[in-house]
Amino acid sequence: MKFPLSIDYISKIKKQIGVDTLNNATIREIVQISTIIQKEVDNEPLIRFDKGIPGLPPFEIGVDAEIKALKNGIAAIYPNVEGISDAKEQMSIFYKKFMNLNIGSELCFPVSGSLQGSFASFIVLSKIDAKKKKILFVDPGFQVQKQQCEVLSVDYDTINLPEIRGNKFEKILKGYFETGLYSAILYSNPNNPTWLCLSDVELKVIGELSNQFDIIVIEDLAYFGMDFREDYFTGQEPFMPSITKYTSNYILLFSSSKIFSYAGQRIAMLALSENLYKKEYINLSNTFKNISFGKALINETLDSISSGTCHSAQYAFAAMLQSINNGNKDCINALKKYEKHAKLTKNIFLKYGFDVLYNDDLGRPLADGFYYTIYHPKLDSEELLHSLLQVGVTAISLKIAGSKEDKGIRICVSQIKDEQIELLDARLSMINSIKEKFETNEVVIHYQ
Amino acid sequence: MKFPLSIDYISKIKKQIGVDTLNNATIREIVQISTIIQKEVDNEPLIRFDKGIPGLPPFEIGVDAEIKALKNGIAAIYPNVEGISDAKEQMSIFYKKFMNLNIGSELCFPVSGSLQGSFASFIVLSKIDAKKKKILFVDPGFQVQKQQCEVLSVDYDTINLPEIRGNKFEKILKGYFETGLYSAILYSNPNNPTWLCLSDVELKVIGELSNQFDIIVIEDLAYFGMDFREDYFTGQEPFMPSITKYTSNYILLFSSSKIFSYAGQRIAMLALSENLYKKEYINLSNTFKNISFGKALINETLDSISSGTCHSAQYAFAAMLQSINNGNKDCINALKKYEKHAKLTKNIFLKYGFDVLYNDDLGRPLADGFYYTIYHPKLDSEELLHSLLQVGVTAISLKIAGSKEDKGIRICVSQIKDEQIELLDARLSMINSIKEKFETNEVVIHYQ
Repeated sequence: MKFPLSIDYISKIKKQIGVDTLNNATIREIVQISTIIQKEVDNEPLIRFDKGIPGLPPFEIGVDAEIKALKNGIAAIYPNVEGISDAKEQMSIFYKKFMNLNIGSELCFPVSGSLQGSFASFIVLSKIDAKKKKILFVDPGFQVQKQQCEVLSVDYDTINLPEIRGNKFEKILKGYFETGLYSAILYSNPNNPTWLCLSDVELKVIGELSNQFDIIVIEDLAYFGMDFREDYFTGQEPFMPSITKYTSNYILLFSSSKIFSYAGQRIAMLALSENLYKKEYINLSNTFKNISFGKALINETLDSISSGTCHSAQYAFAAMLQSINNGNKDCINALKKYEKHAKLTKNIFLKYGFDVLYNDDLGRPLADGFYYTIYHPKLDSEELLHSLLQVGVTAISLKIAGSKEDKGIRICVSQIKDEQIELLDARLSMINSIKEKFETNEVVIHYQ
Repeated sequence: MKFPLSIDYISKIKKQIGVDTLNNATIREIVQISTIIQKEVDNEPLIRFDKGIPGLPPFEIGVDAEIKALKNGIAAIYPNVEGISDAKEQMSIFYKKFMNLNIGSELCFPVSGSLQGSFASFIVLSKIDAKKKKILFVDPGFQVQKQQCEVLSVDYDTINLPEIRGNKFEKILKGYFETGLYSAILYSNPNNPTWLCLSDVELKVIGELSNQFDIIVIEDLAYFGMDFREDYFTGQEPFMPSITKYTSNYILLFSSSKIFSYAGQRIAMLALSENLYKKEYINLSNTFKNISFGKALINETLDSISSGTCHSAQYAFAAMLQSINNGNKDCINALKKYEKHAKLTKNIFLKYGFDVLYNDDLGRPLADGFYYTIYHPKLDSEELLHSLLQVGVTAISLKIAGSKEDKGIRICVSQIKDEQIELLDARLSMINSIKEKFETNEVVIHYQ
């Protein structure tokens, strides 16, 4: 089979997976569709912009440390829920050095992926106060965190970041906070999928309002330092902008998946301020033995979920942090491949009449990094995903990331290979004929 | 400092950890107390019968496979929630060979420890039916599984196995099942902490009642094959007794922690029957996108909790299962150290006036294995834990395992070393003077 694929063929595959529209398909489903298509068009690679998986080899220092720990017999020994001291200490040093944050190693806890950290947090947050039952998400965002709330029957609302930046920001946020319905707000900085970055001014607003209304801020640092407009790894100003400068009501989630290309081992760290750790909520006594937030979260909740985090992976995590703390920038330099591929692929999309959906980052040009969003003025996002899939290019809709826009899709550049850049140009050049058929209504996608 | 320790010293340590009575202390707290004491009485080892951690090196075949996978760069690649095909296939082969169970590899899913499997199951089970909101636990049992329900605000009840065996078993169980309040029943076979083993007859009763009342059975195989009265690794009759012979309403939890001494890597597998996987519960639509039990459990719940299980550990798991499937009994033979230490230490306890609390396993002598329970006719369990701690011997109470008895404690033999067997004799010989002080009320423990 050759590209472009027929609409009928795509429909058949959608049916096979049980997907009605590509616009509603989860990342998992898009990956399933891609896998099937790839098998049937061999020698013709799909260009995969779908799942946000590392496109680099794992940071070797982690692999070496992990192998050493395994050789030392660590596989037999249960990990404590608190985590190994080396990993905790290096996390504390990292935060001091690159975020100018004082946080003790005893407040840093390993989790089986940042997702486990947010999952455990949502459980406790939903029980701290009889009225504050909801989580507020800054959207567009990571779909799985909202899925976590759904699975846990925890209510949530979303605010749409691109719509509320600038002058309106404080007023709108305050409107939500003062309802008294929210225990916490969660955002990722940089933002997945738009790659917008909350500014220091915006973080200050969030921090001050979180103090005023006693709302906990979950700052997801999945893409720490990947706003390449600044170098946040000098150990001096400018430090990575963070909520921790403005409030002690914080939980930080730091993942090894992207910065260290270590997604396979599910190793991340949750940290929280001493103030929040010790803070007592009477309402927790309905559920927990402990009424301090930290003990309910770590000793009861996290401990219940998996009884600690893979032991050898903690040694990898400690070694990788130590290396970066000691000034080794190899893994950061390697990440710049994403920046380069973002620039190159964006230009090709622009050449063929696409545009970047969110390209204004409070007056600054958007950073080039792991993700960006595109649209085509003549196609809605379903037509766009379809057209791209026909020419062998995969992506996910913004709808599943909670975007209010109907026209955008997310491009993740991590998987594209150098030699596929030219291929992308060739594939997009095929798209015009397809696009015209959509425009002239010659082709109508029959949504099932 | 020397043994025996004073009551005052023990009280001081309890206070430091925030423990009122040793009888109510969690395993975690007993471990904390032990760690402090060990530091202050160096050159005098504590004899640790507390936490059920492997006392053997990890099964080397797993370590080798894991190192190989890491060298192949697996650390960068997100694991699928379904798990790697080798691990799934070997689990399926294992069940066929050693349990005579036909279960497809597509129904076996890796989890970050069996605990993650029960945690995810409890979430879905609590939502399948508006009336069946509770879990029924066979006690005494593993405390953390009940803690999981508490954290999730899932109600549960317990039945006390030693009290209800034999003729009463069916009637009592039926009494619970016919209330219509339970979605599932959970037990471990062999049982932690008593090492009682549910017989084929009892499993048949559970299976038939579970069919009659549509109740799901979670069979926790944490100690698979460690009932050393039979060799369940011949690949022929007798097969390991299992609920799967009597009902398709089952979830199996198989852990690598004990059988492969692989507790550090948090790798286990959850399997469920095809029937249960596909079974649709309308009530699930209130929470999930999927109404089939399997998809709600795996694609939505498990996927939300940690987004897959440590990638390299899955390769270890596959290799260890494959080895045992191919007839390598090294890891099983190594486990017999526990059997030997159970026999030896029991005899020493008996010599000093202790007795085994649950020693009648439906007319058969109790198996020697990982755990057993002891009591002293003259001491309640608080006095017993205290006396033992004074002479440098740690254990946990049965109360925290949900036992109705006030006099028993759990002995886990995994950590004792060959050279400590004689030391145990010497330590217990010290206990008589302490015991007498308790008996004559010369010493009274002041519960704070």
